Amino acid sequence: MTPDEFRRYGHQLIDRIADYRSNVASLPVMAQVEPGQLKAALPKAPPQQAEPFEALFADVDRLIMPGLSHWQHPSFFGYFPSNGTLASVLGDYLSTGLGVLGLSWQSSPALTELEETTTDWLRQMVGLSAQWSGVIQDTASTCTLLALICARERASGYSLVSGGMQALDKPLIIYVSRQAHSSVDKAALLAGFGKDNIRYVETDADFALLPAALEQAIQADLAAGLQPCAIVATTGTTTTTASDPLAAIGAIARTHGLWFHVDSAMAGSAMLLPECRWMWDGIEQADSLVLNAHKWLGVAFDCSLYYVRDQEHLIRVMSTNPSYLQSKVDSEVKNLRDWGIPLGRRFRALKLWCLIRAEGVEGLQQRLRRDLANAKWLEAQVCNAPDWQVLAAVNLQTVCLRHAPAGLAGEELDRHTLAWADALNQSGQAYVTPAILDGRWMVRISIGALPTEREHVAALWQHMQQAAAASLPPPLRA
Amino acid sequence: MTPDEFRRYGHQLIDRIADYRSNVASLPVMAQVEPGQLKAALPKAPPQQAEPFEALFADVDRLIMPGLSHWQHPSFFGYFPSNGTLASVLGDYLSTGLGVLGLSWQSSPALTELEETTTDWLRQMVGLSAQWSGVIQDTASTCTLLALICARERASGYSLVSGGMQALDKPLIIYVSRQAHSSVDKAALLAGFGKDNIRYVETDADFALLPAALEQAIQADLAAGLQPCAIVATTGTTTTTASDPLAAIGAIARTHGLWFHVDSAMAGSAMLLPECRWMWDGIEQADSLVLNAHKWLGVAFDCSLYYVRDQEHLIRVMSTNPSYLQSKVDSEVKNLRDWGIPLGRRFRALKLWCLIRAEGVEGLQQRLRRDLANAKWLEAQVCNAPDWQVLAAVNLQTVCLRHAPAGLAGEELDRHTLAWADALNQSGQAYVTPAILDGRWMVRISIGALPTEREHVAALWQHMQQAAAASLPPPLRA
Repeated sequence: MTPDEFRRYGHQLIDRIADYRSNVASLPVMAQVEPGQLKAALPKAPPQQAEPFEALFADVDRLIMPGLSHWQHPSFFGYFPSNGTLASVLGDYLSTGLGVLGLSWQSSPALTELEETTTDWLRQMVGLSAQWSGVIQDTASTCTLLALICARERASGYSLVSGGMQALDKPLIIYVSRQAHSSVDKAALLAGFGKDNIRYVETDADFALLPAALEQAIQADLAAGLQPCAIVATTGTTTTTASDPLAAIGAIARTHGLWFHVDSAMAGSAMLLPECRWMWDGIEQADSLVLNAHKWLGVAFDCSLYYVRDQEHLIRVMSTNPSYLQSKVDSEVKNLRDWGIPLGRRFRALKLWCLIRAEGVEGLQQRLRRDLANAKWLEAQVCNAPDWQVLAAVNLQTVCLRHAPAGLAGEELDRHTLAWADALNQSGQAYVTPAILDGRWMVRISIGALPTEREHVAALWQHMQQAAAASLPPPLRA
Repeated sequence: MTPDEFRRYGHQLIDRIADYRSNVASLPVMAQVEPGQLKAALPKAPPQQAEPFEALFADVDRLIMPGLSHWQHPSFFGYFPSNGTLASVLGDYLSTGLGVLGLSWQSSPALTELEETTTDWLRQMVGLSAQWSGVIQDTASTCTLLALICARERASGYSLVSGGMQALDKPLIIYVSRQAHSSVDKAALLAGFGKDNIRYVETDADFALLPAALEQAIQADLAAGLQPCAIVATTGTTTTTASDPLAAIGAIARTHGLWFHVDSAMAGSAMLLPECRWMWDGIEQADSLVLNAHKWLGVAFDCSLYYVRDQEHLIRVMSTNPSYLQSKVDSEVKNLRDWGIPLGRRFRALKLWCLIRAEGVEGLQQRLRRDLANAKWLEAQVCNAPDWQVLAAVNLQTVCLRHAPAGLAGEELDRHTLAWADALNQSGQAYVTPAILDGRWMVRISIGALPTEREHVAALWQHMQQAAAASLPPPLRA
């Protein structure tokens, strides 16, 4: 494709995306397709000859669009908001169009330095002290893996330069809350700790980790001759947005010399609001934390920020320095390949820069507050409706609820919950995510998609009530 | 930013990228900036108020552009080609603009199914059997880490579900060539094996791994009571594009029951050409391989393909299944979160799809053959020039060379090599990468940027000769 062809098709593409974002509300939120439907419609073998780009656009319309669940839809209440604000989309377009890579500072200096500046801007925006240094990673799963590898290496006196994890005398132990995200478990397993060496600590009635239970678990392991290594706490758990008490946990970590990692993937965005910072009380005692700018905040995926207090430790664990990557200025610059797993890096700071500048800190705060207010509004409706329950404190923008009319309990209640959530999703009117809380299914309403206003939350509430009523077993129907 | 503002600025952005790609040849290839220059020019704190997007475009021109080294420049001969072909750029623009995520099949079915189809297309294009299944990852560093974790788990009988790597009786050993990429070492260290348990196997005169030395190393470890675990071979090493003998290595892997991973990050693209497939003779004996479609092939970064023969094993090692990610169709679909580290996934298959369809297999082959011919042409020039040496077989698109006039040797020759390469890079006329081979500096010329034609290689040859002559110590100057 020549630059002139790119110009022609690029303009068409911009119009297509602008139209999509303008009209997305008219589409069913969840894709209405069957497994295998797209695969069956695509050629089994690649084309030998070039095809005109018009054919690609036509297939996007005909085949791809019906297969999308629309995350940028005002009635998307599933999983978490993954807001690709249009300013950040343009930042990403710049990055892809320029096509430069950050293997080292020299390989495109602006890529590294804009990342240093924008991650420091975000540090200030969420109220972290200047002792933190940030770097952009793909996802929180990767950040937590980095944290646990760094914890492993600090606890083992840098075993990687000698016998590795296989040479350790005493097993290293990881402590997480029972409400931690699945990626924490996965990170511990991939880092080699083993399932037997992960302790799942009990939580309180608000689903926050119990410091006393943590201390008890550590004492038990010490008594058994094991070596406590790291604690992972969460600010804003996936299921209920519960917040673990960081100050108390941090004190325990300090007493025992443990690595303290905080998963703020979702709730980190809320730290732009001073009224939410109580959730981060004690954060300065942590060693590392993750904050996904690609979630609620609005940077187009992927843009997960990993902050550490001891950058030299991170670099020592991650660094490689083959001759073909060396340059004369290495001692004066950051080489971000030593801050994570991949060697190649996109220019992801551009999309973070575009978001912050095009929205401004105040603009971002305003949008986050809109979503918090919408969650409180929904909570009030649900609390006031007969047969409906709000199941966890609404700390942020997520409401956990259940329709539990008298006469429904246990597995029958589970079937009802899954039935109405599924009917709602299948209807295309809204997308919600069922999840298990205390052993029973409930429905998470995650508010905060970019175009979601009060009217959409109000419509959701109507649709939920209709779907729940229609899904009741016949004897219970009104 | 509203969709209408996006339309306006988006059109401007498309024109900017089209102009950039048209005019990039007029820019110095390597950024002519000092460390810290951009950081000093940017505000220390984020803006509180929104700024117009015009201000961002102005700062891109004024601050960002001078800080770029231009990977899409016809005189970029550094590192490796990272071709963001404009068709794939449009595919990536679609992905970012649509803003959908693939946490699970249900969360956007087309994302998963197009990835299944396009990775299978590429499998066919490079001549792999139907026993291989592919998935898109960010980089080869990540793919090799996945491979070594999978190897660890197979060799240890899935230690992750019990005591992990720390509970193993016998240390697991990894075998790599001395010419392997730095990411292989890094992957082994991050996966917990430890430096002591990595064996660096000797290579032959062509820098390819010596099977006899590999067998010897394995025997020595077995005799010492250690447990050989995995071999990593390379097709197209970073320094010289050497190819390890896969058939012989595969036989050794099979004899000892070792995991066999092949790093074809760079050379995998060449497997589109039947005349290059000798490099992959024996590939069907491997357990896993990586091929970076974001290098020479031309998919906008990042798009690294990881292929495995036993997908069930990969899923068993990587899977997580929390309630909030379950859906009714899980038994009928692929959930690609179980194929790698991150949970969130961009719609990266779109850019691979756009590349293959817009160029066609034959179009891609034609471009790769152009680059191979240009490398052969340069090799011939260098071989015929007095005082110049080609240092390794030109198997692909990389020429390793040195200007070594009589009277220069040892460290003096090293200084000369670094001096002329640096002078050439600083001149902005071309970008080349010095590297160490057999203990001495040389210069790698990596041909294959998208706009690089014969004329650009001819100009490079002139510029190299001028830079080398001008950098000679005074007594040696003509």
